[in-house]
Amino acid sequence: MDIRQTAAAAKHAAIRLAAVDTNTKNAALASIALAIDAGRERIVAANRADLEQAEKESLAAPLLKRLKFDHDKINEAVSGVNSLIDLPDPAGRTLSATELDAGLELYQVTCPIGVIGIVFESRPDALVQISSLCLKSGNSVLMKGGSEAAMTNRVLADIINRAGIEAGIPEGWLALLEARSDVIDMLALDDVIDLIIPRGSNAFVKYIMDNTNIPVLGHADGICHVFVDKAADLNMVERIVVDSKTQYVAVCNAAETLLVHKDIAGSVLPVLRGALFAKGVEIRGCPQTCAVIDVKPAVAQDWSTEYLDLIISVKVVDNLDAAIDHINRYGSGHTDVIVTADPERGKRFMDLVDSAGVFVNCSTRFSDGFRFGLGAEVGISTNKIHARGPVGLEGLVIYKWRMLGHGHIVADYSGKDAKKFTHRRLPI
Amino acid sequence: MDIRQTAAAAKHAAIRLAAVDTNTKNAALASIALAIDAGRERIVAANRADLEQAEKESLAAPLLKRLKFDHDKINEAVSGVNSLIDLPDPAGRTLSATELDAGLELYQVTCPIGVIGIVFESRPDALVQISSLCLKSGNSVLMKGGSEAAMTNRVLADIINRAGIEAGIPEGWLALLEARSDVIDMLALDDVIDLIIPRGSNAFVKYIMDNTNIPVLGHADGICHVFVDKAADLNMVERIVVDSKTQYVAVCNAAETLLVHKDIAGSVLPVLRGALFAKGVEIRGCPQTCAVIDVKPAVAQDWSTEYLDLIISVKVVDNLDAAIDHINRYGSGHTDVIVTADPERGKRFMDLVDSAGVFVNCSTRFSDGFRFGLGAEVGISTNKIHARGPVGLEGLVIYKWRMLGHGHIVADYSGKDAKKFTHRRLPI
Repeated sequence: MDIRQTAAAAKHAAIRLAAVDTNTKNAALASIALAIDAGRERIVAANRADLEQAEKESLAAPLLKRLKFDHDKINEAVSGVNSLIDLPDPAGRTLSATELDAGLELYQVTCPIGVIGIVFESRPDALVQISSLCLKSGNSVLMKGGSEAAMTNRVLADIINRAGIEAGIPEGWLALLEARSDVIDMLALDDVIDLIIPRGSNAFVKYIMDNTNIPVLGHADGICHVFVDKAADLNMVERIVVDSKTQYVAVCNAAETLLVHKDIAGSVLPVLRGALFAKGVEIRGCPQTCAVIDVKPAVAQDWSTEYLDLIISVKVVDNLDAAIDHINRYGSGHTDVIVTADPERGKRFMDLVDSAGVFVNCSTRFSDGFRFGLGAEVGISTNKIHARGPVGLEGLVIYKWRMLGHGHIVADYSGKDAKKFTHRRLPI
Repeated sequence: MDIRQTAAAAKHAAIRLAAVDTNTKNAALASIALAIDAGRERIVAANRADLEQAEKESLAAPLLKRLKFDHDKINEAVSGVNSLIDLPDPAGRTLSATELDAGLELYQVTCPIGVIGIVFESRPDALVQISSLCLKSGNSVLMKGGSEAAMTNRVLADIINRAGIEAGIPEGWLALLEARSDVIDMLALDDVIDLIIPRGSNAFVKYIMDNTNIPVLGHADGICHVFVDKAADLNMVERIVVDSKTQYVAVCNAAETLLVHKDIAGSVLPVLRGALFAKGVEIRGCPQTCAVIDVKPAVAQDWSTEYLDLIISVKVVDNLDAAIDHINRYGSGHTDVIVTADPERGKRFMDLVDSAGVFVNCSTRFSDGFRFGLGAEVGISTNKIHARGPVGLEGLVIYKWRMLGHGHIVADYSGKDAKKFTHRRLPI
């Protein structure tokens, strides 16, 4: 497979796709949902073959579970695609409109980014979700899934690609890469591919980030903190800490480190130890923590570890600013929480913690596109340009400056008798 | 100079600077303007020393001119800094506000990006402009200017840095790098520096882009096109082509290639030849062009050359889509113009040309932050993420998600008796 050629075809399609109207894109999504529904026997058969192969190769049980794409998963995928139809089109939105002078009008209008490269690990549902998000936003997509799901992915990509084209989406808009070497080739195509979105383990995402010059939307780590301030409302401390740590441990927005203000460590730590132990959580404490409660001592490494497991590191800090400094030093810029009843201290925390999500008096686990009400989640980004935190469809668009004149030239606005710009905001 | 240490200090300052209020930042800008004004003898003396050195080294006349920083330039720089005071603060703006549930409110609020690295060639005015833009937007800044201007830059950076700190901006917010090796070191600090903005020649910008993993805001080329459609209003063709090519040839938004629809090539080309020759422009034509007018033949290289000079390449195209394809293939995604009286054809051009600026019936030269009414220009970007085209202060900010709860936890929104999110838009 010549990836440059495939990518060039995707770029060619992307140009055309950018001009496809919202109705056609929505009709294509409806067709894709129908085609997946109609193709369910073919999909399940391919998935069964993938699962048999995986069992032969003794894949671990959690991986097998993620790989499985049965009728329930198909139903979810179909309703996921259909749910995008009702969302507003992120492209074609006018962000600003300015009259520069009589008859010379400037419009800043959102448009698709172009060609998106997606690399994901085993779950085939990611293929359906991501390709439909790209279509809704008007982007071409190159995808590479995990090799365990090769047969399932091939069938899904084929169904989605054809249904899209039959509904009027330009040919070339979707391509599935199959070999691992294809990914290496893709990551080098920074002149054709505009954005890479990786989905998978931290090590996987970090590998992608380290091996391409193409902008990457994603995050390698989720080292989230809960800081229990001296001014905390003690009724909510236990709830928030337990939820942040244990509600679902294997995800990036679970808390990994608990910081406790020294003034309340004596009263709060024993309560939290009881609550966390009851949930089966192992606590690794700093020396001051260990002086108050009987827990395993933490080592330096703990402060920068994303456990994704029933483990939490605990540190007693001298004051609010020490908590902020710790988070900015060891955190991953994902989501951090302060529990405090003092709004001024809450504000200082939100001002000074340099993370995508800065929350007061609620769980880290709210950091999520669905919970945020974004309609669809493209991913979570810890970048500091373009998009940050949970990213909705607007992360897949950029804008163009469209200007309409009547023979206007710049020479008229310089020198003697120069015309003046009006720079009048127009209603959008 | 230990660049990592300097950058770490800048990052530390950036965290504090992000929480500095608008009034303090504006007062600091006023102090900086006063300090530059008060320090003018020192600045001029340093600049005179740089100029003497440059003359000894036989620097070319245009470079000497750019290097010169006299009382007029100082006046311009002072009024440039003062003009930023009246602009709205790009940070602290609420982009969206959503009630997730009673008492749980989410705010998407703009904030500074963090640490900006600036690398610019000779002009010392760039130092004043860029450092003040960074301050206004709340970012720390590391700067490296051209070595010819070393003494001028040192004095300017010292004046600006001190005046800022005295007005309440955190120490470390500005640092001037002096050695070329410092730039190499800076470009490697992708864990500390959030954005690089290069200012200088194409080769210089391209070098920066090729040698860092840090996101770069800028453009390496400006290969802009004017397409004269068969439906063009002939009265405006000559004006727009001449202005786009000749109003100022040495800049990125000047036109480099003219495309002419075949149906009107016979009538339009002789007129344009006369008008361009009168301005001293050399024309390099495709075979079809050369069949109509007596000009030098173009070679393949011409279509992808940014002349920045009184030269233009001219190609006759069969139709609108051929013009669009040519631009998407050879252009640099900067600014492209169609001259047409047919709004449908204008729309198709704007939809399908994949450039930051897509203009109908006006000069390419309007592609500029001042002319766009952005208030201040940070740079022009041909990237397709974050910011595109002329970039104002909003290119120096990103956003945080601030959430205010009252003990809300995610467990309450899952399983049996799950609470429902309200996802109600709040007024901004």
